[in-house]
Amino acid sequence: MAYCEDTDPEEEQRVAVDTLTEQKSLLAELSPGKRTRLHRLLFEFGPGSGTLMLLPIDQGIEHGPRDFFPNPDSKDPDYQFRLAAEAGYSALACQIGLASKYYPDYAGQVPLILKVNGKTDVPSSAHAFSACNASVEDAVRLGADAVGYTLYVGSPRQDEDLAQLRQVRQDCDRFGMPLIVWSYPRGEAIDAKGGAGSLYAIDYAARMAMEMGADVVKLNMPKIDPAKDKDAPAPYNEMEVTQEEAIRHCVASAGRALVVLSGGSKVDDETVLQNTRDVLEAGGSGVIFGRNVWQREWSEALEIIGQIKETLLSSVRRTP
Amino acid sequence: MAYCEDTDPEEEQRVAVDTLTEQKSLLAELSPGKRTRLHRLLFEFGPGSGTLMLLPIDQGIEHGPRDFFPNPDSKDPDYQFRLAAEAGYSALACQIGLASKYYPDYAGQVPLILKVNGKTDVPSSAHAFSACNASVEDAVRLGADAVGYTLYVGSPRQDEDLAQLRQVRQDCDRFGMPLIVWSYPRGEAIDAKGGAGSLYAIDYAARMAMEMGADVVKLNMPKIDPAKDKDAPAPYNEMEVTQEEAIRHCVASAGRALVVLSGGSKVDDETVLQNTRDVLEAGGSGVIFGRNVWQREWSEALEIIGQIKETLLSSVRRTP
Amino acid sequence: MAYCEDTDPEEEQRVAVDTLTEQKSLLAELSPGKRTRLHRLLFEFGPGSGTLMLLPIDQGIEHGPRDFFPNPDSKDPDYQFRLAAEAGYSALACQIGLASKYYPDYAGQVPLILKVNGKTDVPSSAHAFSACNASVEDAVRLGADAVGYTLYVGSPRQDEDLAQLRQVRQDCDRFGMPLIVWSYPRGEAIDAKGGAGSLYAIDYAARMAMEMGADVVKLNMPKIDPAKDKDAPAPYNEMEVTQEEAIRHCVASAGRALVVLSGGSKVDDETVLQNTRDVLEAGGSGVIFGRNVWQREWSEALEIIGQIKETLLSSVRRTP
Amino acid sequence: MAYCEDTDPEEEQRVAVDTLTEQKSLLAELSPGKRTRLHRLLFEFGPGSGTLMLLPIDQGIEHGPRDFFPNPDSKDPDYQFRLAAEAGYSALACQIGLASKYYPDYAGQVPLILKVNGKTDVPSSAHAFSACNASVEDAVRLGADAVGYTLYVGSPRQDEDLAQLRQVRQDCDRFGMPLIVWSYPRGEAIDAKGGAGSLYAIDYAARMAMEMGADVVKLNMPKIDPAKDKDAPAPYNEMEVTQEEAIRHCVASAGRALVVLSGGSKVDDETVLQNTRDVLEAGGSGVIFGRNVWQREWSEALEIIGQIKETLLSSVRRTP
Amino acid sequence: MAYCEDTDPEEEQRVAVDTLTEQKSLLAELSPGKRTRLHRLLFEFGPGSGTLMLLPIDQGIEHGPRDFFPNPDSKDPDYQFRLAAEAGYSALACQIGLASKYYPDYAGQVPLILKVNGKTDVPSSAHAFSACNASVEDAVRLGADAVGYTLYVGSPRQDEDLAQLRQVRQDCDRFGMPLIVWSYPRGEAIDAKGGAGSLYAIDYAARMAMEMGADVVKLNMPKIDPAKDKDAPAPYNEMEVTQEEAIRHCVASAGRALVVLSGGSKVDDETVLQNTRDVLEAGGSGVIFGRNVWQREWSEALEIIGQIKETLLSSVRRTP
Repeated sequence: MAYCEDTDPEEEQRVAVDTLTEQKSLLAELSPGKRTRLHRLLFEFGPGSGTLMLLPIDQGIEHGPRDFFPNPDSKDPDYQFRLAAEAGYSALACQIGLASKYYPDYAGQVPLILKVNGKTDVPSSAHAFSACNASVEDAVRLGADAVGYTLYVGSPRQDEDLAQLRQVRQDCDRFGMPLIVWSYPRGEAIDAKGGAGSLYAIDYAARMAMEMGADVVKLNMPKIDPAKDKDAPAPYNEMEVTQEEAIRHCVASAGRALVVLSGGSKVDDETVLQNTRDVLEAGGSGVIFGRNVWQREWSEALEIIGQIKETLLSSVRRTP
Repeated sequence: MAYCEDTDPEEEQRVAVDTLTEQKSLLAELSPGKRTRLHRLLFEFGPGSGTLMLLPIDQGIEHGPRDFFPNPDSKDPDYQFRLAAEAGYSALACQIGLASKYYPDYAGQVPLILKVNGKTDVPSSAHAFSACNASVEDAVRLGADAVGYTLYVGSPRQDEDLAQLRQVRQDCDRFGMPLIVWSYPRGEAIDAKGGAGSLYAIDYAARMAMEMGADVVKLNMPKIDPAKDKDAPAPYNEMEVTQEEAIRHCVASAGRALVVLSGGSKVDDETVLQNTRDVLEAGGSGVIFGRNVWQREWSEALEIIGQIKETLLSSVRRTP
Repeated sequence: MAYCEDTDPEEEQRVAVDTLTEQKSLLAELSPGKRTRLHRLLFEFGPGSGTLMLLPIDQGIEHGPRDFFPNPDSKDPDYQFRLAAEAGYSALACQIGLASKYYPDYAGQVPLILKVNGKTDVPSSAHAFSACNASVEDAVRLGADAVGYTLYVGSPRQDEDLAQLRQVRQDCDRFGMPLIVWSYPRGEAIDAKGGAGSLYAIDYAARMAMEMGADVVKLNMPKIDPAKDKDAPAPYNEMEVTQEEAIRHCVASAGRALVVLSGGSKVDDETVLQNTRDVLEAGGSGVIFGRNVWQREWSEALEIIGQIKETLLSSVRRTP
Repeated sequence: MAYCEDTDPEEEQRVAVDTLTEQKSLLAELSPGKRTRLHRLLFEFGPGSGTLMLLPIDQGIEHGPRDFFPNPDSKDPDYQFRLAAEAGYSALACQIGLASKYYPDYAGQVPLILKVNGKTDVPSSAHAFSACNASVEDAVRLGADAVGYTLYVGSPRQDEDLAQLRQVRQDCDRFGMPLIVWSYPRGEAIDAKGGAGSLYAIDYAARMAMEMGADVVKLNMPKIDPAKDKDAPAPYNEMEVTQEEAIRHCVASAGRALVVLSGGSKVDDETVLQNTRDVLEAGGSGVIFGRNVWQREWSEALEIIGQIKETLLSSVRRTP
Repeated sequence: MAYCEDTDPEEEQRVAVDTLTEQKSLLAELSPGKRTRLHRLLFEFGPGSGTLMLLPIDQGIEHGPRDFFPNPDSKDPDYQFRLAAEAGYSALACQIGLASKYYPDYAGQVPLILKVNGKTDVPSSAHAFSACNASVEDAVRLGADAVGYTLYVGSPRQDEDLAQLRQVRQDCDRFGMPLIVWSYPRGEAIDAKGGAGSLYAIDYAARMAMEMGADVVKLNMPKIDPAKDKDAPAPYNEMEVTQEEAIRHCVASAGRALVVLSGGSKVDDETVLQNTRDVLEAGGSGVIFGRNVWQREWSEALEIIGQIKETLLSSVRRTP
């Protein structure tokens, strides 16, 4: 990449953040089917007002049952389904098995996002690729309001991933099904350029998901780590940004696609709420917290959910 | 994974076992076709009362004829088919060749589970993957009441396995055919985390099968081995559970999917019956013993089968 | 594998051979289409009386033209076609090119077995896999009465092989076309367990072919070699069997599928006839000799064929 | 390759350039659908007069967001779309995500080229292959006037690339959609023969694209580098050509397919204009400059675009 | 391979050549569609009298533009098309791009052979495989009279090659399109057995092509090289044949399939004509010379073509 010689990199970065484009309404661009379904998540369920509060219960496949021990009740999938319905979530995201055997009891009470690919974390993720175990047609049949796809940006198997995503994306277009991409940097090439959590990697992941046709992008929180960031390509290797600015970059890179930020492993309550505030203020549309919520017993879970909901509504900046 | 800091791991484990959720009826969630067929196995054939006593005759492909030498009569597949019919099994499980050439003589006398994939044990199982040699449509054509699929959880080829299982699962949904997943941990990554027989591995396998859409999960008995378990991810690396608790964990992880436990190589009679008792009392639905049964001559085989049947009926805890 | 402790392995082996189950009629189990076509080979052409005398002319692809030099006339495929028709063979087996360009002249005079896969022997066979170059539909179109498929049992590519065979087997079921499996052990794992010619390997190959849906299994003659057999799995590593007993084991392992034994490279006449006698007396249904027949000039070929035919008819033990 | 012995290589080269065949009209050979659509790009939009001025906005996927920092406005894809429409481009080229979410606002104002494959630059490009993420049917549905495909000439995965391109090309033929091939030499074998930028490599890439059915070929500027060119096959290893002659060779190798030259990373204005002049005078049809244009703020971008347009019109030599 | 002990290898070889079977008419065996189209090439265009004089213009993809420098006019594909039409060729063979953009001007004037696969020579050919870039349906659509396919005999990827060829062959059968196989030995296993140019290799390639369903086989001239031939399998390792005998062997191995011999790189005129004479006298049907023809300027090219044509007609021995 060549830069204009008269440009000061630091100046550039500030400008990039300051001049953040106000994205046009996403819903206005969508087909009637996508618009109808996404409208349910944004306005008819959950906190509403154009926000997304999503409950993921895919850890049983991605990590195994080990995540359920801190709260033994959570081993029964009904726990998360009941939580999503009673606490008023925008939607619950799970794989085909749970959707088939547990969602019927809650149909109509909370929207379903069917994740169509997934994998165990047993083998190394050096060549990460997550094969589809369900189809968009399965999602339609089950009454889902969106489809989830996990994309490993930068994996050496990106060609298989993009080809598979293409099929899912085309089926989403055909059925009017919103497409939510879990966009995760992965692979040793990413590790060598600052790591999967770097702003470089998350920013790229945000753009890739949008370019591949995502309507909503699920991102991990970018982590600022100068020691590792120096290995990233320019200008990321010399950027000095705050956490808030980092999020704004990623949200901007996702363009008209909506952004939801994830929580990862369990952290303290203030961090949960601060992250929620940060992503909404950066123009993001919501959060997707799993273990941070359902690794708590019922009443504690309801309490933090209430706080998240309140934070979402008080921080919302963008009309989807 | 992050734990609440005020949680005592050992306390957690006991709670996990004590608060085991009573699973809702599986049959109530199933489509009419699956329900009709599974009802046959659970109530109309075999011991009944919602139990499963299954006879596998897939060792000829998985191990070769060597398993038949201890009881030369068993080399003729008709031996196992006759045993299944006359001793009153819930169903017999075999591959397409036997189903085509031996099942016709017993059609109507004992239900058939068509195993749709399989492989020899000649090459190394480091990259285990078992390709389909038959389809769900074959099963429908042959009058089978369920389909069997072998999933290698944790194999480096899990992507191919999950994609193949997806096709089988979707065809099962289409035809109303119950799906039984033989869920086996495999691969060097599993070996490095405690081994294929560890509670960590079997527990994960139980959850994976259910998440991928299994109606019934076939598991091997988890083996407690502190020396190897210390390499498993937390909390398995520090758990102290009894054999009975281990089984309860696995049955719980399978959720609404029914669990049948297998016997493996031939063991003494008391172990056979104790295992039967353990899995039923833990909420499992039955057993699948092959070599432990048909490596005996006819009258001895009938005797142990009678004892297994009695044990199943006296130990049943769960209404499917 | 666990044995009953009170069992004497040698005793077991004798029993296995002595109690060889009389297989039920194969034809009675087959669909009308398969039955009609196989009946032609067994009773209407060739020696008849339920025997199979097959002429293979696939060496031009499997080995190249080098096999034709000992009898230059044999380089012209018409030589083998004329021999099959005039000497009265049960059927001739070849690939699509010969079937298309040479069989038309002999249509109606001798049945055709279309081999649907094959390969050169130029590259190493360490990862042996033989891709299909024709379809069952090609066989139907050409008026063939059976389809031939080469399966490499134990090859590291067994997953591809079994998946490919599945398609062929399903098409055979669909069209009522008998399926003949050339079942060959292959790969370094087999080499490490006694080799491709060992009883362990051939016995496994016999069972695999039958389990995968073969109606007829083509096997190589098992070779007793204590020095190599000791590396085979138990009980093969300590078995002491005669050549005759070895064949009986393999025929028994193929169950209701018929067995034809092959000749391999050219041997003396007495061996040819003794092998013929052995396989028929062991319950096999016939022989498939290629080079042993057509590497002779016309009148010599006719003479040995007459002797083989006579031996077949005088040794037949099984009603197919 | 054998040469006539009486031929002087240098003489040959000059002749090759001097006798450059006047290509017949491409449009006259095309099907009505291709002709209609390509006519729009060549005559109805952009500079017209049979020239092509294309704006690519695929860097967000090929390089990631890092390319947008020099001009922060460019991070919002609407910037490039607006530029293409307002400055009067022949067409804008992008991937499916941008085409779906940003093109609708400019439909009818500027033609769309849908690029149907692409990849990140995160993993090594040693085995470069760019999987399709969209189809020609997607392009038809979105109202695109051409399809873009990236071919990696010389990659060890060329077999997959050519098979994939075949599908795209056939669909283009079926739908009457012009096919533009981004023809890039890649892989270590190319590196060992002078490199991806050498005349040998670009010349080969031009021919390959045309031979594979491209209507328009997008090439990088060949770079003369005697130190590296000496590793190229004869006669490239000893050719002494000017930059202008090198371009003429490549344009000639593309035959009746039209050629557009790309700019790569940002260079100074005079180089931009000189390259434009060179390719048109060599018989090429246009240019495709991305970063050289939109890494400038709005008014500067408009100014250079105006100069490019003027240069195109004053340098055009070929009637498409 | 076992030989009759009383056979003298040298005697065998002479016999093989002396008793060369007169092949039956190929045309008589072909379907009406194939017969109609092949008749055009053999009798209605070119020299006629059942000969084939083919002009290949696939070097632009197989070698790149470097082959065109000796005769700069040849860089424009129209040169070869015009030559084929005006000099009266039996057919011209090229890939899809040239067929689409250059053949229309000569439709009806010279038959077209559409080559459906091809590749660059940039990467190593150790694992040679040439993916299809066009279909038989493309050939039908373009009015072609035959389809060309390049098969790499002995390549480690032979399984993919044979599976791909199967599809092409089946489509040829379906559409009545003659199939011409460019049959080339390739791969390190061939190199270790005497090399791609040895009689062993070419003889095998001839048989393979015919066995896989070729109607016409294109072979390279076998080269006698005792130093390398000693590594070939018996009896090739000890054969002493003349060039003429070597060709006769290869022609015989192709059976009823017609043989055309290629020229390779440019050689002197007498060799061109001698090769033509040799292949025709050995029972071959024609020649396919590319660089030997179009690497000459127009009048010289016409002159050698006239001489080739005359030689063909005066040497023809076989009625197709």
